[in-house]
Amino acid sequence: MSASLDTALAHIDKNLDASLERLFALLRIESISTDLAYKQACRDAGQYLVDELTSLGFDASLRDTPGHPMVVAHHDGPADAPHVLFYGHYDVQPIDPIELWDNPPFEPVVKERDGAKRIHARGASDDKGQLMTFVEACRAWKETSGTLPCRVSILFEGEEESGSPSLEPFLEAAAQELKADIALVCDTGMWDRNTPAITVSLRGMATSEVTIHAANRDLHSGFYGGAAQNPIHILSKVLADLHDTDGGVTLEGFYDGVEEVPEDVKAVWNSLGFSEAEFLGDIGLSVPSGEKGRSILEQTWARPTAEVNGITGGYTGEGFKTVIAAQASAKVSFRLVGKQDPHKVHAAFRKHIEARLPADCRYDYIEHGSGPATQLDWDLPQVKLAADALSDEWEKESVRIAMGGSIPIVGNFKDQLGMDSLLIGFALPDNAIHSPNEKYDLKSFHKGTRSWARVLEALAQ
Amino acid sequence: MSASLDTALAHIDKNLDASLERLFALLRIESISTDLAYKQACRDAGQYLVDELTSLGFDASLRDTPGHPMVVAHHDGPADAPHVLFYGHYDVQPIDPIELWDNPPFEPVVKERDGAKRIHARGASDDKGQLMTFVEACRAWKETSGTLPCRVSILFEGEEESGSPSLEPFLEAAAQELKADIALVCDTGMWDRNTPAITVSLRGMATSEVTIHAANRDLHSGFYGGAAQNPIHILSKVLADLHDTDGGVTLEGFYDGVEEVPEDVKAVWNSLGFSEAEFLGDIGLSVPSGEKGRSILEQTWARPTAEVNGITGGYTGEGFKTVIAAQASAKVSFRLVGKQDPHKVHAAFRKHIEARLPADCRYDYIEHGSGPATQLDWDLPQVKLAADALSDEWEKESVRIAMGGSIPIVGNFKDQLGMDSLLIGFALPDNAIHSPNEKYDLKSFHKGTRSWARVLEALAQ
Repeated sequence: MSASLDTALAHIDKNLDASLERLFALLRIESISTDLAYKQACRDAGQYLVDELTSLGFDASLRDTPGHPMVVAHHDGPADAPHVLFYGHYDVQPIDPIELWDNPPFEPVVKERDGAKRIHARGASDDKGQLMTFVEACRAWKETSGTLPCRVSILFEGEEESGSPSLEPFLEAAAQELKADIALVCDTGMWDRNTPAITVSLRGMATSEVTIHAANRDLHSGFYGGAAQNPIHILSKVLADLHDTDGGVTLEGFYDGVEEVPEDVKAVWNSLGFSEAEFLGDIGLSVPSGEKGRSILEQTWARPTAEVNGITGGYTGEGFKTVIAAQASAKVSFRLVGKQDPHKVHAAFRKHIEARLPADCRYDYIEHGSGPATQLDWDLPQVKLAADALSDEWEKESVRIAMGGSIPIVGNFKDQLGMDSLLIGFALPDNAIHSPNEKYDLKSFHKGTRSWARVLEALAQ
Repeated sequence: MSASLDTALAHIDKNLDASLERLFALLRIESISTDLAYKQACRDAGQYLVDELTSLGFDASLRDTPGHPMVVAHHDGPADAPHVLFYGHYDVQPIDPIELWDNPPFEPVVKERDGAKRIHARGASDDKGQLMTFVEACRAWKETSGTLPCRVSILFEGEEESGSPSLEPFLEAAAQELKADIALVCDTGMWDRNTPAITVSLRGMATSEVTIHAANRDLHSGFYGGAAQNPIHILSKVLADLHDTDGGVTLEGFYDGVEEVPEDVKAVWNSLGFSEAEFLGDIGLSVPSGEKGRSILEQTWARPTAEVNGITGGYTGEGFKTVIAAQASAKVSFRLVGKQDPHKVHAAFRKHIEARLPADCRYDYIEHGSGPATQLDWDLPQVKLAADALSDEWEKESVRIAMGGSIPIVGNFKDQLGMDSLLIGFALPDNAIHSPNEKYDLKSFHKGTRSWARVLEALAQ
């Protein structure tokens, strides 16, 4: 370890409370990107980060898009040092069901339980807490050495939780400005509480919203029941037919481009000591629901899925209403692996719906965000450098894993800027991201910041 | 026609505007019984009717129940005159989706279109407009003859739209007070705009709310998709499997007690000139959805059904949220005919759910209102008397029909008080009851009032 890194790490330790206060200020901003009511809050979150980065000597600015603005910032590094682009997102998921939160989601608090301190707030983990580990690592370098080990550019997005509609055109327009030697993305997790990880493969996604329309108005089920089409019945059939009895997805051609996991990769995964019973037990379940004959790691890391994320139709208030609804709708997401093509998946789903649609009904189909899966080269030099830096910080061998979630930006960086991404994050499985009572371990925040300080130096070697 | 009836009818014609103003006052009261937020409004509606009936010389009072109060009123008639019990309900359906209403639902207005004037408001038809035809007929008799042709008792309920939970115990306690020679129920419709009808058969109902519980919290579909049970998938399967490909209901033993419609009854129905294309076309559809090989009149009048009236689960707001919900629920109603037993239907549905429930999931099942089907004796003397009175008023032969809706009170009157019910109403198929823009023809209200004036005298013969 260099003396300057040593100094930077000591600075991080000494100033943890101040770092936390800066994170809290960001967490208090209600930047829910899926809901237009929070448009200004999203902008405020972006502006907060611009101000932070400017104060650190970055050339930082808010860039307008048709949706929420991007934050772009640049900082020089030593001559011949590599150029890294760090990516994170300042937007957060909606907070419903609000009644299940123990604390107001936008009033961050640190609570201690079983000896571990955790930051509780919407976005504490995904992704405000994570992105701030990098910002605070830069702060430590700047405030101790006056500069950064690498040339650093930063891109913070405000639409990650709403499908990133502005990302592709923005990257296209700003390709020259943003292209770096490698991207650093902090939106993934540790393997476990003590084991750092680099995520080398990510599932892609195709998301859609389907609305089935039947009668031209809501009907009384006494007068019309047994004669008029019920859109909830049609929708139920469409959704129930998405899976076969072995847990596979039934869409025509769905498995085109899906590759089996190589045996050596499976061997690494099998050595991780993953407990299926514990994984399911933690969420109150005991029986894997997915494709038969596949381990849970395989099901969630390397197999494509179809999940209904929301459904609504007819009367859903208190009591009962004997109505046949005019329409019913569902939000459906497909997780993709290998070379599955999101556009073909959308087309196959439309065909699946149309095959079950009565002649006198119609449907609307909205495509939300989509992106293919991505797979990093396991032997990339930067993976090795970063892996060693992580092992040093956590005093435990880091592991290279896959992830079931989708981070479309990684595909965009590869396709649009020809740039690989190092996925390093400090989230834990119990962080409850996207759920009530989201949290982030204080240790993740603290050692995450220290990790980035190390990785920045390692990549400069 | 007697001179006194003649006078009463003329009085109705002359005072139509005042009658309408009294109906409007009742329509302005937001008596939604399914929503506890409207508890006081329900009471206000009951009290309004108590006051109206008291002003007409009835011995009227509000009777408390564990839910919304009943209105009970009595008025003597001539010696040896029959005793009739009139039933209606002052509660109304919820108003959502409110954005589809052309006028505020609790601000009644009369609008003219295609030469017909209609009263627009929630409850204009179901059932405030209908019950007021009887109250106003009583008023006409009282204000012209000083008395009523029959001994009249009245029962107005405030929980008809929420499954009548208090009705059975109330009738049991008040059986002696309420038992009459026959019940008159005004909650049904005309055959068409010009043809009055008596409804001699009604479908019963079994309604329930099912909630499927899977994980102990909402999950991120990236981390858990493909491994964790999704309650929306389970619910979709439960609902999709309710029907076979011929439109029949699959619950075990569901058709026990269902009888085929006698050929002579079918012949009457076939002579009614019912247009299936027009019936479906009016609601924007063209293909009957129910059991194959049955006419729509048969499907909606004489066959049992299963309908999903509402469904909700996961994220249903704007945009997209990649969540696997902890729970999903649906409101389901079964329409019953013949001797189908609602309790057996509930049991069969529970069994159907349990057969599709994964070992690590559970479900809640709430029974809302239930009641068997009812079938009136086609040769009942009072049917003949009332039918003739209706034919006189509308100058067209009245018809005896069936109805697909459920009016559980009719079963209660039969079972608990040993009393048949004459179902006479003036609603029309386009009244949009239970839907936005509910309406009631001014002609229904006016000639409905005149009809009851006639029926009261006819039954006294």
